Amino acid sequence: MYLSRAFIPTIKEIPSEAQIASHRLMLRAGLVRQTSAGIYAWLPLGLRVLRNIERIVREEQNAAGAQEVLMPTIQPAELWKESGRYDDYGKEMLRIVDRHEREMLYGPTNEEMITDLFRQSVKSYRELPINLYHIQWKFRDEVRPRFGVMRGREFLMKDAYSFDADHAGAVRSYRAMMLAYMRTFQRLGLKAIPMVADTGPIGGDLSHEFIVLAPTGESQVYYDASFEGVDYLAGGNNPDLDKFFADITSRYAATDEKHDTAKWAEVPEANRREGRGIEVGHIFYFGTKYTKAMNVSVAGPDGKMFHPEMGSYGIGVSRLVGAAIEASHDDAGIIWPDAIAPFKAAILNLKNGDAACDGLCERLYAAMDGDALYDDRSDRAGVKFNDADLMGHPWQIIVGPRGAAAGKVELKRRATGERAELSPEDALAKVLG
Amino acid sequence: MYLSRAFIPTIKEIPSEAQIASHRLMLRAGLVRQTSAGIYAWLPLGLRVLRNIERIVREEQNAAGAQEVLMPTIQPAELWKESGRYDDYGKEMLRIVDRHEREMLYGPTNEEMITDLFRQSVKSYRELPINLYHIQWKFRDEVRPRFGVMRGREFLMKDAYSFDADHAGAVRSYRAMMLAYMRTFQRLGLKAIPMVADTGPIGGDLSHEFIVLAPTGESQVYYDASFEGVDYLAGGNNPDLDKFFADITSRYAATDEKHDTAKWAEVPEANRREGRGIEVGHIFYFGTKYTKAMNVSVAGPDGKMFHPEMGSYGIGVSRLVGAAIEASHDDAGIIWPDAIAPFKAAILNLKNGDAACDGLCERLYAAMDGDALYDDRSDRAGVKFNDADLMGHPWQIIVGPRGAAAGKVELKRRATGERAELSPEDALAKVLG
Repeated sequence: MYLSRAFIPTIKEIPSEAQIASHRLMLRAGLVRQTSAGIYAWLPLGLRVLRNIERIVREEQNAAGAQEVLMPTIQPAELWKESGRYDDYGKEMLRIVDRHEREMLYGPTNEEMITDLFRQSVKSYRELPINLYHIQWKFRDEVRPRFGVMRGREFLMKDAYSFDADHAGAVRSYRAMMLAYMRTFQRLGLKAIPMVADTGPIGGDLSHEFIVLAPTGESQVYYDASFEGVDYLAGGNNPDLDKFFADITSRYAATDEKHDTAKWAEVPEANRREGRGIEVGHIFYFGTKYTKAMNVSVAGPDGKMFHPEMGSYGIGVSRLVGAAIEASHDDAGIIWPDAIAPFKAAILNLKNGDAACDGLCERLYAAMDGDALYDDRSDRAGVKFNDADLMGHPWQIIVGPRGAAAGKVELKRRATGERAELSPEDALAKVLG
Repeated sequence: MYLSRAFIPTIKEIPSEAQIASHRLMLRAGLVRQTSAGIYAWLPLGLRVLRNIERIVREEQNAAGAQEVLMPTIQPAELWKESGRYDDYGKEMLRIVDRHEREMLYGPTNEEMITDLFRQSVKSYRELPINLYHIQWKFRDEVRPRFGVMRGREFLMKDAYSFDADHAGAVRSYRAMMLAYMRTFQRLGLKAIPMVADTGPIGGDLSHEFIVLAPTGESQVYYDASFEGVDYLAGGNNPDLDKFFADITSRYAATDEKHDTAKWAEVPEANRREGRGIEVGHIFYFGTKYTKAMNVSVAGPDGKMFHPEMGSYGIGVSRLVGAAIEASHDDAGIIWPDAIAPFKAAILNLKNGDAACDGLCERLYAAMDGDALYDDRSDRAGVKFNDADLMGHPWQIIVGPRGAAAGKVELKRRATGERAELSPEDALAKVLG
């Protein structure tokens, strides 16, 4: 993309309503614009990040055996009356009356609708297990939306729902999703740690939040430093799930509300880490709560009907954009993890109009095949450096007239600030990995 | 995808509310399920088609220089009051009041919002032209939703909006989009013909509908058969737009309402074609209608402020799934154009459990790398043949015990019914083309 023609409206003034770094940086770097309180339009740079996250989430869901569907945003109120949640949900649910005076709502989550789709189609235990997910916009009418896309009203969520024949199957589904989540966050370049969460009336230990560590996080968290060394991608897609689960849950990790000082004391002192964290995912086993309430049953091997066991598994896709920035930025701007960066590199032409600079930049740009943002504007070098740092591309390929004449470029790594003079080919080889 | 584990709930009974072929076939083949009147959930098979269409639409929009953004579904009423359309839009607009009693709406289209985003960011003629598009769910509260996804209430639309400094620029943007549309429909495997449409108070000739020919179409259409020979992909992405536009608009094409019997008489008799058609796109030039109403201006070369000229360009992405089926099906089921088929081929194992059949099928399945639906169910061959025809995969690779023992498969082309006995390698070569 040529920056001179790109719709990337950076701004200099920090909007006063933006209280946290990710909100400020997303507005300043032209990733999003607010269109109503807690509702955002995604501009080209922000959309590319959102799509990268979506793609990685999707790949790991598919690899774990979940199947993608797409449920609509607008749901009928009747389904929620069946489950009993229509009255419980309160003012966060955006309620709508259509032209025929039917009660509808903008889905804040999809347990009821997926259970209804399952009920219409699945008749036998032989069709289980099934795990269905979608990546769709949701709406929660937050009373005080804030922190940009981190606590917006319209937000993109991946939500998966598993159906199993028995408790053992549901546990397997839960553990498979937990592993898929850890793989997902690792691939996104984020340090995420699973923490035991409330199970409410369901009980048991099958509810985990996934917390990304970031100094501005909303919760205080305590965890064992040994989490930092785990490589979730090492075992491929088919590791021993029981072993994985036992291993992960043997390490201490808790939010403030669940913090257990006695257990904490058992963690070797050198391993105790405290910090702040942002919730980016939640997985939850809820057994037959919805299948019973909505009267869903399938035939078992003995011909008897039974209620399948369910779990639900959410990832805040749009929230992750903000969380990634909270976890990785400095005073100059965003520092994108490679996997989700909108572009692998910015190409900075320090002397627009200079034939050698222009020619070399065009050659680099063509070689990067859409993965570079080419700063071809007629601005001063300082403006280009600042904007590239602000937008946070992992690499900057800097092309000046002296270097271009000598067949050299400067390659800068955003995360470390390291710079090196290289041939264009060597720079490309590094950037394209 | 293994069919035995896939969530593709085919049904035998034809739902009584389904009046047209695409609606019936989408329900029968398990592509979608209705969740409320005119609102559908997309199941795995249908979603794959929707994504294929989306991808081709996106690629052609990008190639034409449009930039992708993503605006939210929920819009503030104020913007529509500024343009004057809030009261005009009537009951098709889904109006919503949020918890703070603010008037909101579910966007039926995005002229107001994109104009507002433009207004916040673009200050000078030097930043023009700009063409921004998004592919987002829209809502129109149809009084009688019907024909499945063809006239649903929640539907997926690609809408682009161009901003130009003057009329000549706006005409160029219009023509570039028209070409992008013809390329898009050709790549989708659809015969679409542009027809002059109403311009209302704007006047001029810059409003075209794109009509896909299908016997069950909603409109009667008249067109010159010479349209059928045009190859819009031949010229690459940078042909002479004026020549293209002059050429296309010199050929006769009109819907019933615009039919001109005098001009029709000038078309050589052998070239006159009549038929039915489905509208799948609409492009429209509307000058300064919104920039004036919403008081948007940018600085010209002389420093004077002026109102940019706009156009809008829509494609009904979810509607195209239905339109493609209307244009291409038979009594047995859907016949997908290759480019948008959910899978390139079905692999039919005629004797599940036979080691040679199972082994060969698995080998074929692995070679197709996710592009095949493998019917590994323990059903009779007849059931498998019927379901493959119903789902409409372009190819069927049929593996029976005699063939498997002899190292042969049968390859069937869905569109023609042609069958040939081939080695597995030759069959794969044909399918993967």
